Amino acid sequence: MTRSELFSQIQQKSSFLCVGLDPDINKIPTHLLKEEDPIFSFCQQIIEETADFAVAYKPNIAFFEALGAKGWETLAKVEELIPEDIFTIADAKRGDIGNTSKLYAKAFFETMNFDSITVAPYMGGDSVSPFLEFQDKWVILLALTSNAGSADFQLIPDANEKPLYQTVLEKSQKWGSPENLMYVVGATRGELIGEVRKAAPEHFFLVPGVGAQGGSLSEVAKYGMNSTCGLLVNSSRGIIYASAEKDFAKAARKEAQKLQIEMTGLLEKYL
Amino acid sequence: MTRSELFSQIQQKSSFLCVGLDPDINKIPTHLLKEEDPIFSFCQQIIEETADFAVAYKPNIAFFEALGAKGWETLAKVEELIPEDIFTIADAKRGDIGNTSKLYAKAFFETMNFDSITVAPYMGGDSVSPFLEFQDKWVILLALTSNAGSADFQLIPDANEKPLYQTVLEKSQKWGSPENLMYVVGATRGELIGEVRKAAPEHFFLVPGVGAQGGSLSEVAKYGMNSTCGLLVNSSRGIIYASAEKDFAKAARKEAQKLQIEMTGLLEKYL
Repeated sequence: MTRSELFSQIQQKSSFLCVGLDPDINKIPTHLLKEEDPIFSFCQQIIEETADFAVAYKPNIAFFEALGAKGWETLAKVEELIPEDIFTIADAKRGDIGNTSKLYAKAFFETMNFDSITVAPYMGGDSVSPFLEFQDKWVILLALTSNAGSADFQLIPDANEKPLYQTVLEKSQKWGSPENLMYVVGATRGELIGEVRKAAPEHFFLVPGVGAQGGSLSEVAKYGMNSTCGLLVNSSRGIIYASAEKDFAKAARKEAQKLQIEMTGLLEKYL
Repeated sequence: MTRSELFSQIQQKSSFLCVGLDPDINKIPTHLLKEEDPIFSFCQQIIEETADFAVAYKPNIAFFEALGAKGWETLAKVEELIPEDIFTIADAKRGDIGNTSKLYAKAFFETMNFDSITVAPYMGGDSVSPFLEFQDKWVILLALTSNAGSADFQLIPDANEKPLYQTVLEKSQKWGSPENLMYVVGATRGELIGEVRKAAPEHFFLVPGVGAQGGSLSEVAKYGMNSTCGLLVNSSRGIIYASAEKDFAKAARKEAQKLQIEMTGLLEKYL
């Protein structure tokens, strides 16, 4: 998917919502456990009920990988199920030396058909670039994450007082462009989103941390929105586990719609 | 596996060789392609012929993942095949927020039975710690990698002139101990291995980059060996692709033995 196609989805749906698919066998409604593939049934119903409001889905690969080969089959089926015009994110946090990164890229972009993959920057340019060589596919590079541990390394200032995440933003903009490179920018650090936006004015940000992790949607929009929106704000648990009963998919729909309505207001205000 | 069990393996075999399993369907001998699971047959024969000389095997997860669910089945079978007394490394370079890292840990330590997993440090302590909570299981944390891109971030000095990889070594020693935490230290930076050894005197290092990537085994031993050896030196392509013919496993055996003989000399010299 191209950047302009993504922006046109955002305008059509008046939403920049990404629904995170973190299907935990211990958390999904128990009535699904009698299905042949409970995780698939769960994701299927969530997708059906939220597709009107979401411009992206982000399966968290760990939740599938924990189930072994069967989990990978489920993941492939879930990816196929997502409507063509909705952006898909493999939240996999991969990254390795060149020839290995290329294989990870093939796994997610060719064996499966994801639009994008999250990538960790620690190993540097030649570990990220192989992911950027696929037509209309995207890298979403970790810049500033939403967890407490992000302070351990990402905020360390160099000799010129530039924190590591800023160096990641700076160097990586030479590897990719706003047409194939996004950044993960956590919502729990409201004031810092503005700093990231200054350093990367055109790029899309994938913003986790709204909802369960405590980030504020209006702060994210205020500091982070650009002229093509430039934001995909993710909510996982707040939507998919809104109810643990038979009405879980309808409850998920309601939560997704709530966020979409809030997003409509923010798009009108800032775009 | 415990550290003392690993060291006793090293002493018994007079070797600190790790064989990297990077089974590429386009590189394995063509006569294997008629087998039901060519990748499995390839790994099986390599393991059979090299197990006398290897103290560790390191499947590179990308090579299996690129084949989808079928690749994961193969990976599980390969892991089961490796003799109990040989250390197993899932070279996966994972790392995510806490509850997600825990699931990755389960995937490799419980769904499969790997002894260790390689982990990327960028997201900080709470992304690494969940892997350290499993009895007799290991994190192998990226510190200084062997690729050119390692210079992009790992070597950046902070305000006190301490490069990032040193901060990773320093902080992570508070999360784990030499009993459950190793480091990836690339062999292509001979002089730097001594620096890493000073910062982490007791920990084991997993050293890639010997052979195809140009690192020198004697330099690694000179700068990196400690009183319990403290080294697992990996060779992948140099061993597993020593021949592309029907004799590939015997050729792999020969290359593994060559390294083991060199290692015996180095253990006698430095231990």
